[in-house]
Amino acid sequence: MREIGIGLIGTGFMGRAHALAFHHAASTFELPVKLRFAALADADAARAERCAADWGFARACDWESLVNDPAVELVAITTPNRLHYPMTMAALAAGKAVYCEKPLAVTLEEATAMRDAAKRAGVVNRAGYNYLQNPMLKLARELIASGELGEITGYRGEFSEDFMGDPQGPFSWRCETEQAGGALADLGSHVLSLTRFLLGDIAALCADLHTAHAQRPHQGGLRRVEIDDQAHVLLRFANGARGTLSTSWLKHGRKNHLAFEVCGTRGTLTYDQERLNELRLYTAGGRPGMDGFRTLLSGPHLPDYAAFCPAGGHQLGYNELKTLEVRSLLEALAGNGSLTGVDFQEAWEVERLAQAIRESAREERWVRI
Amino acid sequence: MREIGIGLIGTGFMGRAHALAFHHAASTFELPVKLRFAALADADAARAERCAADWGFARACDWESLVNDPAVELVAITTPNRLHYPMTMAALAAGKAVYCEKPLAVTLEEATAMRDAAKRAGVVNRAGYNYLQNPMLKLARELIASGELGEITGYRGEFSEDFMGDPQGPFSWRCETEQAGGALADLGSHVLSLTRFLLGDIAALCADLHTAHAQRPHQGGLRRVEIDDQAHVLLRFANGARGTLSTSWLKHGRKNHLAFEVCGTRGTLTYDQERLNELRLYTAGGRPGMDGFRTLLSGPHLPDYAAFCPAGGHQLGYNELKTLEVRSLLEALAGNGSLTGVDFQEAWEVERLAQAIRESAREERWVRI
Amino acid sequence: MREIGIGLIGTGFMGRAHALAFHHAASTFELPVKLRFAALADADAARAERCAADWGFARACDWESLVNDPAVELVAITTPNRLHYPMTMAALAAGKAVYCEKPLAVTLEEATAMRDAAKRAGVVNRAGYNYLQNPMLKLARELIASGELGEITGYRGEFSEDFMGDPQGPFSWRCETEQAGGALADLGSHVLSLTRFLLGDIAALCADLHTAHAQRPHQGGLRRVEIDDQAHVLLRFANGARGTLSTSWLKHGRKNHLAFEVCGTRGTLTYDQERLNELRLYTAGGRPGMDGFRTLLSGPHLPDYAAFCPAGGHQLGYNELKTLEVRSLLEALAGNGSLTGVDFQEAWEVERLAQAIRESAREERWVRI
Amino acid sequence: MREIGIGLIGTGFMGRAHALAFHHAASTFELPVKLRFAALADADAARAERCAADWGFARACDWESLVNDPAVELVAITTPNRLHYPMTMAALAAGKAVYCEKPLAVTLEEATAMRDAAKRAGVVNRAGYNYLQNPMLKLARELIASGELGEITGYRGEFSEDFMGDPQGPFSWRCETEQAGGALADLGSHVLSLTRFLLGDIAALCADLHTAHAQRPHQGGLRRVEIDDQAHVLLRFANGARGTLSTSWLKHGRKNHLAFEVCGTRGTLTYDQERLNELRLYTAGGRPGMDGFRTLLSGPHLPDYAAFCPAGGHQLGYNELKTLEVRSLLEALAGNGSLTGVDFQEAWEVERLAQAIRESAREERWVRI
Repeated sequence: MREIGIGLIGTGFMGRAHALAFHHAASTFELPVKLRFAALADADAARAERCAADWGFARACDWESLVNDPAVELVAITTPNRLHYPMTMAALAAGKAVYCEKPLAVTLEEATAMRDAAKRAGVVNRAGYNYLQNPMLKLARELIASGELGEITGYRGEFSEDFMGDPQGPFSWRCETEQAGGALADLGSHVLSLTRFLLGDIAALCADLHTAHAQRPHQGGLRRVEIDDQAHVLLRFANGARGTLSTSWLKHGRKNHLAFEVCGTRGTLTYDQERLNELRLYTAGGRPGMDGFRTLLSGPHLPDYAAFCPAGGHQLGYNELKTLEVRSLLEALAGNGSLTGVDFQEAWEVERLAQAIRESAREERWVRI
Repeated sequence: MREIGIGLIGTGFMGRAHALAFHHAASTFELPVKLRFAALADADAARAERCAADWGFARACDWESLVNDPAVELVAITTPNRLHYPMTMAALAAGKAVYCEKPLAVTLEEATAMRDAAKRAGVVNRAGYNYLQNPMLKLARELIASGELGEITGYRGEFSEDFMGDPQGPFSWRCETEQAGGALADLGSHVLSLTRFLLGDIAALCADLHTAHAQRPHQGGLRRVEIDDQAHVLLRFANGARGTLSTSWLKHGRKNHLAFEVCGTRGTLTYDQERLNELRLYTAGGRPGMDGFRTLLSGPHLPDYAAFCPAGGHQLGYNELKTLEVRSLLEALAGNGSLTGVDFQEAWEVERLAQAIRESAREERWVRI
Repeated sequence: MREIGIGLIGTGFMGRAHALAFHHAASTFELPVKLRFAALADADAARAERCAADWGFARACDWESLVNDPAVELVAITTPNRLHYPMTMAALAAGKAVYCEKPLAVTLEEATAMRDAAKRAGVVNRAGYNYLQNPMLKLARELIASGELGEITGYRGEFSEDFMGDPQGPFSWRCETEQAGGALADLGSHVLSLTRFLLGDIAALCADLHTAHAQRPHQGGLRRVEIDDQAHVLLRFANGARGTLSTSWLKHGRKNHLAFEVCGTRGTLTYDQERLNELRLYTAGGRPGMDGFRTLLSGPHLPDYAAFCPAGGHQLGYNELKTLEVRSLLEALAGNGSLTGVDFQEAWEVERLAQAIRESAREERWVRI
Repeated sequence: MREIGIGLIGTGFMGRAHALAFHHAASTFELPVKLRFAALADADAARAERCAADWGFARACDWESLVNDPAVELVAITTPNRLHYPMTMAALAAGKAVYCEKPLAVTLEEATAMRDAAKRAGVVNRAGYNYLQNPMLKLARELIASGELGEITGYRGEFSEDFMGDPQGPFSWRCETEQAGGALADLGSHVLSLTRFLLGDIAALCADLHTAHAQRPHQGGLRRVEIDDQAHVLLRFANGARGTLSTSWLKHGRKNHLAFEVCGTRGTLTYDQERLNELRLYTAGGRPGMDGFRTLLSGPHLPDYAAFCPAGGHQLGYNELKTLEVRSLLEALAGNGSLTGVDFQEAWEVERLAQAIRESAREERWVRI
């Protein structure tokens, strides 16, 4: 069986999540490739050494050596957003497959360059959008695609959390444009990717971006905040449906509220990621009064659930979505590109939409995509 | 005690709801006035006679006699929308107080004339927006006004039902502009009035109106539909908050989904009229992990609930909201204008917003109010 | 049309609820009889006078005169529990129809005498169990009876509130056996009647009664409490099903938690009266994973809902259940006994079960019914 | 760091779950011991070989060799229930630590012998009750222990699923007493362990066991079923609280409904494992009407959640509970016995309660524990 040498850059939360997901994918699935944990890089060399030992990587090194290491065939990038571009470009230049956390880059120009470079390099390329790996979201997409809801007419998408809800919450990298800060970049990209995953192309949009808290505490004083705290967007889909999309990191009580409602001529489907093992489905045409919303539960009728658990109602967790993403990536490396996954082209589409939202908000007008 | 002679025009669902609400208000509350059921009018004279007998009105007559009957001091109008204007104007000309079902009129010009005439006449004037009488909505308004949620930053308002959800549903008066048809006029007016009730003035908006089903069965053929099936709107409030507002009569499974979410710097509050005895409130600043959304239940701590039931959790129904609206009107007739109620000025504000939404959608641009 | 003279005894919460329900029944339904509000009695004569005026009764008097008043054909009794027996017996002796609030009496002996006297008198007799008038509960019964759930195998019934949840809550009449005090008499009777309404006869039971708070504040000191705070019961139904029944007035947060779950070979049905316009239904045999619990909403497909409102999702309230009970009673007076209602025989069955629960708990053994 | 040689017996669902959990524990936690995957045994030797390779075990062998292998210090047993006893006894005789899936054994006599042998051997011993590892259940126990709910007065525990809900579901080992079949053994043991985890000792109980479907399809015919389909139990706790406990594998729509409600003098707490990242808490004494049930979400304020994810609302899944159990076991092997875990003594208490339930049901009487 072909062996894949993995090089991982970054040892923060997402670095660890990647390391664990590779291990878990290997122990959970019958993978088409064998994994070799080749190299781990981190700006902090001592930390890189320690984590390499803990997570089973053969060596620790700096990122430049890693991307050029012949033992490395896949480079996983989990560093701060502004480093995605140079690292990805270097890895692609060295002919490596790349798995880069979202967002692809800090500017659309960089993202475009990354997408084009990946296409030229002809290597497997993936962006980290693991929420889409939820078997319940794949079911949702199938229900929509199969016509279970009829023709789609309406949509509402939202991703809200509350970690910046306190106006006295300190200034951080999340508040800087150069770090891809702002609720739109941080949370909005997820709901944009989900929206496309479910309903396909957006034809036009009109957006309102808002900085509710214009300055935040910083180094004993106050610092001006330039990014958005919340975004509200009108959507027109290529398929004719209309709707809204919102994102906020101010919404108290919402901890992981990636949510949607899709309405069609024959039914309605809703989801809230705070209950990621559930969907609510209404199908029209039942006996009057006997036709309410049904709460669907995740279970082994869904293959990606069955891989983890043979009994219904036992629930998958967040980390298993990351494991599913890694598995999809490894299948793609073995030539099977059929599993759900976000490649650079698709990640670029999300960045382009975010850009269009900023443009629409700045100019207060509709933007055609 | 002063006696008020009531003249009711219309005997359909809303006519009956008015008649019952006057009776129920009299038996439920210690009213400051005594009711006399003076006259009932309907285009169908025989039906007027029968209903007058059933509902305890002294006589049946045509509407012109009714508005000029000296025994009538208050005219309640529950006829089709396009008749609101002539009937109201006639009643005001005769110096009567008027209680007119929403929408005030079919055009903003008519609504403006009605508002101005009422002001000139100096009589009590009310529009039928009984949903706002829900004690839980009054509590919501108080919570917002008192700062329980902090400074308001975000809002989502929606009123969706599904009674036009079937594309084969027939053409009806609801599909005609001249009858104040369309989801925006029919359902949107409610969520607009609720939005103003909670958060006050809207400063600017940008809207998208959509006719999903451009023709509907009519007399054996198909007839072109000109009104909107759904509306999506970006909102900027005078108080600085941002948000969205949506309405649809296509949304399968939603039977009475007048809903909102208000987000502030200290908390979040949500409501869905399909559970009209509940609110969900999140207050920030609790012990980490002990601070989830609370489900508040209606109960006798709310005076307007206590009037109907001394025990919590027993629930009010839709009809009691109408009774509360009538009571507020009768108090106003006795000089106590402090109870929640929508007068012509406020109803005109709603019509003006609907007009702005139509303008914004037509011209695809933001509209300042 | 036949006229029925109503005599009402009692002017407390239930007295007022009766008065309003008679008025509302008359204005809501096309009744087969005409109501005459003949007489109102209360121990407090001045209060009786005042309420008679407010509620439209022709005269106020003492209860003995009322039950013997030739103008009175139906006696409605809403006095404290221990007075139900003498008043009912006097009314029956005078040949009147009787509508007595639950519980029928303070002892099973009295209840038996009342039931027998009513049978001998051959008059219409009803006990106040208005919760059963909820159209959603009638739907539940129909679903069960029609085999929608298959053969019934399991049951859970509960009625919990929290109004005695504070151990420092004062001693009251509810704590006295002679007043039919205790959670079992007060709340348990409702869930017993509901259980029989849904599943019919109970064949055997085994119960545990518990006085959690053995003394409560009274007149500056503490007074010993002899009644039960909570009851837990094992049930075996005549139809073979098994289950549990519980009642408590200590359960903090439960305001009107009359709830059940019925499980059969083809489905499961649940209800919670804190959302009295909803049922949750699961039907087995659907596509795997597409077969979750459905939330059914009340609506005009149910005739008893349609009588109040033509649109779904608008919700009935507690008071409308009382109106439906009065309507059923008035229909029975006109010879139509087909509507849901609890007569003295059925109310006696409930009392007998409560007695069996007490016996089982006292002797710590199963009791066959 | 001390190395622990792991021997795993069984390669079915639970065998794989154990293997993965050991791997995941090693990659997730900083363990106090180093794991060596020493040996894997299965009755099917070829399968043992294959799984040993897949899961990283050094060798495959038969179970007798495994328990006597000097390289094995911990024996994990995931075989059919009737094999738990001989394997555990052999492992203990060889001085190994034992981690045995629940139920401990098929009879109380065997369970007693296992508990006593483990005590004599002085080795770490654990039974597989991973549900109790849910951080939300640990929080629930803390809330109860800390007095957040006041003095506990009432309890309801349940574990229901529906995998035997179809009367035509075939006879299987789950239907045989000698295999520890029956809903009580299979599901009831979980809710018994949970009940003790939350509220401690049960002083007395009275139970009803029921075989709803007395025969099931088997080899073309019907075979008599002797075990229970559902159990209902009255409970009296040593702390004075009262309540009920139920279990059923017939309850359609319930997929993993391990649920409880605990009621105290100051609050109420509820849980349903179908939403294992949530608790609902009501605390008395708030402002009237502002004091509803709160939905608490799992998050990084709980250390056992933080180990997997730094952000709230992202949810743990079933498999992570198993990982937590393995971690607790490995800590115990390193001398730290403070983490939640069910040892043989506690598992025996559960078996004893199950035995008492059978006795109570058979003899139709209360049983003191």
